[in-house]
Amino acid sequence: MPAYQAPLRDIAFVAHELLDLGSHYQHLVDCEALDPSTFDAIAEEGAKFAEQQLAPLNAVGDVQGCRLHDGQVTTPPGFAAAFSQFADNGWLGLDKDPSYGGQGLPPTLGFVIHEMLCSANHAWSMYANLTSGAISTLSAHADNELKQRLLPALIAGRWTGTMCLTEPHCGSDLGLLRTRAVPQADGSYRISGSKMFISAGEHDLAENIVHLVLARIDGAAPGIKGISLFAVSKRQLSAQGQPGAANGVSCGAIEAKMGLHGNATCVLNFDEACGHLLGEANRGINAMFTFINESRLAVAQQAQAHAESAFQGAVRYARERLQMRANPRLQPEQAADPIIGHPDVRRMLLTQKAFAEGGRMLTYACAQDVDRLHHGATAAEQGAAARRLALLTPIAKGFLSEAGNEAAQLGIQVFGGHGYIHESGMEQIARDVRITTIYEGTNAIQGIDLLTRKVFADNGQALTQLLDEIQHFASAAGVPQDLAQPLLIQVESWRQVSAELQARHHDDANLVGASAFDYLMLSGYVVLGYYWLRAACIAEQALASGSDEHGFYQGKGETARFYLQRLLPRASLHRTLIESGSANLMNISDSAFAR
Amino acid sequence: MPAYQAPLRDIAFVAHELLDLGSHYQHLVDCEALDPSTFDAIAEEGAKFAEQQLAPLNAVGDVQGCRLHDGQVTTPPGFAAAFSQFADNGWLGLDKDPSYGGQGLPPTLGFVIHEMLCSANHAWSMYANLTSGAISTLSAHADNELKQRLLPALIAGRWTGTMCLTEPHCGSDLGLLRTRAVPQADGSYRISGSKMFISAGEHDLAENIVHLVLARIDGAAPGIKGISLFAVSKRQLSAQGQPGAANGVSCGAIEAKMGLHGNATCVLNFDEACGHLLGEANRGINAMFTFINESRLAVAQQAQAHAESAFQGAVRYARERLQMRANPRLQPEQAADPIIGHPDVRRMLLTQKAFAEGGRMLTYACAQDVDRLHHGATAAEQGAAARRLALLTPIAKGFLSEAGNEAAQLGIQVFGGHGYIHESGMEQIARDVRITTIYEGTNAIQGIDLLTRKVFADNGQALTQLLDEIQHFASAAGVPQDLAQPLLIQVESWRQVSAELQARHHDDANLVGASAFDYLMLSGYVVLGYYWLRAACIAEQALASGSDEHGFYQGKGETARFYLQRLLPRASLHRTLIESGSANLMNISDSAFAR
Repeated sequence: MPAYQAPLRDIAFVAHELLDLGSHYQHLVDCEALDPSTFDAIAEEGAKFAEQQLAPLNAVGDVQGCRLHDGQVTTPPGFAAAFSQFADNGWLGLDKDPSYGGQGLPPTLGFVIHEMLCSANHAWSMYANLTSGAISTLSAHADNELKQRLLPALIAGRWTGTMCLTEPHCGSDLGLLRTRAVPQADGSYRISGSKMFISAGEHDLAENIVHLVLARIDGAAPGIKGISLFAVSKRQLSAQGQPGAANGVSCGAIEAKMGLHGNATCVLNFDEACGHLLGEANRGINAMFTFINESRLAVAQQAQAHAESAFQGAVRYARERLQMRANPRLQPEQAADPIIGHPDVRRMLLTQKAFAEGGRMLTYACAQDVDRLHHGATAAEQGAAARRLALLTPIAKGFLSEAGNEAAQLGIQVFGGHGYIHESGMEQIARDVRITTIYEGTNAIQGIDLLTRKVFADNGQALTQLLDEIQHFASAAGVPQDLAQPLLIQVESWRQVSAELQARHHDDANLVGASAFDYLMLSGYVVLGYYWLRAACIAEQALASGSDEHGFYQGKGETARFYLQRLLPRASLHRTLIESGSANLMNISDSAFAR
Repeated sequence: MPAYQAPLRDIAFVAHELLDLGSHYQHLVDCEALDPSTFDAIAEEGAKFAEQQLAPLNAVGDVQGCRLHDGQVTTPPGFAAAFSQFADNGWLGLDKDPSYGGQGLPPTLGFVIHEMLCSANHAWSMYANLTSGAISTLSAHADNELKQRLLPALIAGRWTGTMCLTEPHCGSDLGLLRTRAVPQADGSYRISGSKMFISAGEHDLAENIVHLVLARIDGAAPGIKGISLFAVSKRQLSAQGQPGAANGVSCGAIEAKMGLHGNATCVLNFDEACGHLLGEANRGINAMFTFINESRLAVAQQAQAHAESAFQGAVRYARERLQMRANPRLQPEQAADPIIGHPDVRRMLLTQKAFAEGGRMLTYACAQDVDRLHHGATAAEQGAAARRLALLTPIAKGFLSEAGNEAAQLGIQVFGGHGYIHESGMEQIARDVRITTIYEGTNAIQGIDLLTRKVFADNGQALTQLLDEIQHFASAAGVPQDLAQPLLIQVESWRQVSAELQARHHDDANLVGASAFDYLMLSGYVVLGYYWLRAACIAEQALASGSDEHGFYQGKGETARFYLQRLLPRASLHRTLIESGSANLMNISDSAFAR
């Protein structure tokens, strides 16, 4: 089983050298105190927790899984103790509001910690991450009284949170949902209905769970515009906020899943459970998008974190495993060389590395915009961050979940037959990461969101700004043109295909759907190419200035070249497929699908 | 859980309309009696067995798996009874030598049955398939006495077979193997050593197992040229061939694997087990290649069969699941339409279908050459078939295993969250098919084999013949040029890149390894394009002649167009990556891989 080692050197590269977070914090409100050395010290503590407490529970969580007995869910051995320690050490409150017990540090730091939790133990990390999402959503939409009652216990990690959207007959199409909310005289609601696929929906880590539940108030409009958001406590709360008797929420089943066995995926039955409205009635989808958008970035990180873990496992194996002779020989005294010497193994390892480190640059850059959104000094700065984040979120979620899956599959492949065995750890990574292309909106949904709500809706302004930024950077003096040139070609291609789609989609109702996946992937390859070019430039400057970390920077530049020569060309294929149009998908007779 | 339905109409399309097996059998020796209606009747019987006996055991085999207790392996409930029935009904002997109890039918028919077994229950099918491989290998390399002792029981299915290659320290690199063979006075050998990853290595389906074991005779040369092949019976055999006491072979462990839980993957310890040499001493690898080549085609079929199953499950779900509104509406009376109306779902389904049906055309075409190899009327015909089969085997194994994995992952994706749940059946398919890119030689090995031993070694003659054939077909009058044109471009590209690699690989020892995977995939896309173009032409002719199966042929033509417009373009990407050379893989400092 591979031992996870937090990639602190690369995390520091992204945080300090690429994003210059030290200066960035100086421009934010209430973040000035966080200097780079404090940042690194906190990251190191997070690394210790991930490596020492969570990673050892990852395989056991997979093998033992969660058990449901008499409505109670038992999590795998060690999960509850680790959660207590996490909560006691204040990790849940790291970037939360000090008014409710948080430490008020910037979200970027939370992202760094989250990556390490996910690499070490994705299943466990979701108990914490969903609590974070619930805290953000309550912070944004609950009234003050409700915040006072719920936030301190959530931030302290005494309680956890969930998001309850899916029902058996509605996943992507939330307009179909049937869970009912009946108004009560005291201003509360009685919630009844059945929700499924509720991650961390029931467990033994905390004394209470706050479910954020989408439901339709009796008499509300059908479809998406009649849905409201409610906070439903697992246990009834006393006036002082102490949890007491059960509140009409029960766990009916837990799912037998491909992976993530350590996280209980529950059917939750709400039977006249007492709930409180969050935000305005019938605007529940909008309120829930606070949670959904945050979760989409979390999914991007989960996938990136798996790419990192898969790379770590594969590269260690590739150094140890002796098979065939390499050119040149690496261990001439042996009958065979480590497989890291073989070109196809290097192709796989470099793909993993390029996705893991490239994904880190992209997700932390998104986190920087989350910082600006919450701590920006001006409304203009906050607005600009919100627009860029809106554009990058579906790309990060969609593209990185595909990349994370590919990296995980390559992890198995590098191990050969041994990768198919549980003990390698590689096949668990592949099973755990598999959900990331699906949950929080399938990647088709991400692509459609990207095109319609992020590109078309503002006439491509946010996109144009990003494209101009990339073009400007890649064209600047001093940027190695052999690396910049392929990126510039793809930037122009992205610009053109966006304009074409915007011009043509009114005439073809299926063009967006037919293009969504490929457009998403094209976008992702170009964005990652931008960050890899920036990384290459930083590395070149460091080498030119005589850095004593010659190996690190040289490897960075070589990986950038690999990315630009061997992964970025995939963007051209996606362009070709978009341009093949929708007819080859839609002009298909039903009989073609006969079986 | 999806109920497998054997795609008999499409099987008949490939067998009769594409390959014209009826006429083909007329030209073979000892196959003339098999007319198309008998062929169909046997296929229907095989379909019943697969659908009714094996498919219901597939999920239970996954959940219950195999158990090892006191050296005995218990297979999942129902597996042994199904194997008895299979053997009793004579299926194992279908295409085997009548001299030893077989029915002597042509291998093509065995391939048809094998596909259905794999779709219904891959794990179970391997007990039968490995027995077939052992029978072929013994038939080709054992002396007459050994054949008499071993073949009748194997062909009757009273015994099964295995192939024992891998050891803990050697997988791809068989030259490293350490298992010893000590010659005895009676001409037999004592075999000692440890083998791992032995599929069907121990079980409760049969009274004896014949292990075909690679080992090094004491004093033989190191490396690949000192390896010999032995038949080692699990039980000692009496003079009459009756199995008795144990023969120094024990199962030390079974592996906890990602999938294929119903097939026992064993560590086998040989402790002075009595073995008999097959073929010449020190030529064991050559002899084993009878088994390996047959198994590689079986792996191609396993992957293709999973693509079929994943397609069947996904298309049924896509017709039932109502989410969002399609353009045009499919069920205007409902709040939402079946997801089969959405372009991105159609993209996924058509990809699965194109791989499942395209893979069927390719594997059955390979089977036709296996027919010619064994039943060809002349040595020239046999030789031509052998050369073409040698070229197509790595392509079929490598390309179709990648395609089968993609189709399986798409099956999960079409189901959305439900695909991640065991009950959907989709995630099992993805876990079971995952091994196909690895075993019987990883796909990197397939690509290297293709380039060096199949293309370079004969100066590209077999390849040129195939390329000419495709070019000739695609250029012929009457072939729709909008479909043929993209294929002709890729054929020319394959020709060029092959010539370039042949010219350049002497100057760059890593060029083959750096190109192997992409060359393999490029080859596969073009070959499948050829078969899809042929299918499109057959469909067009049937439609023109007023077939009463309008829907079937129209769907076939539309799928061909989809393939040529949306999958074949991937070949261009692979060309680009090949041409990026080996430097972006090899000129990477060790520090780039640091973790």
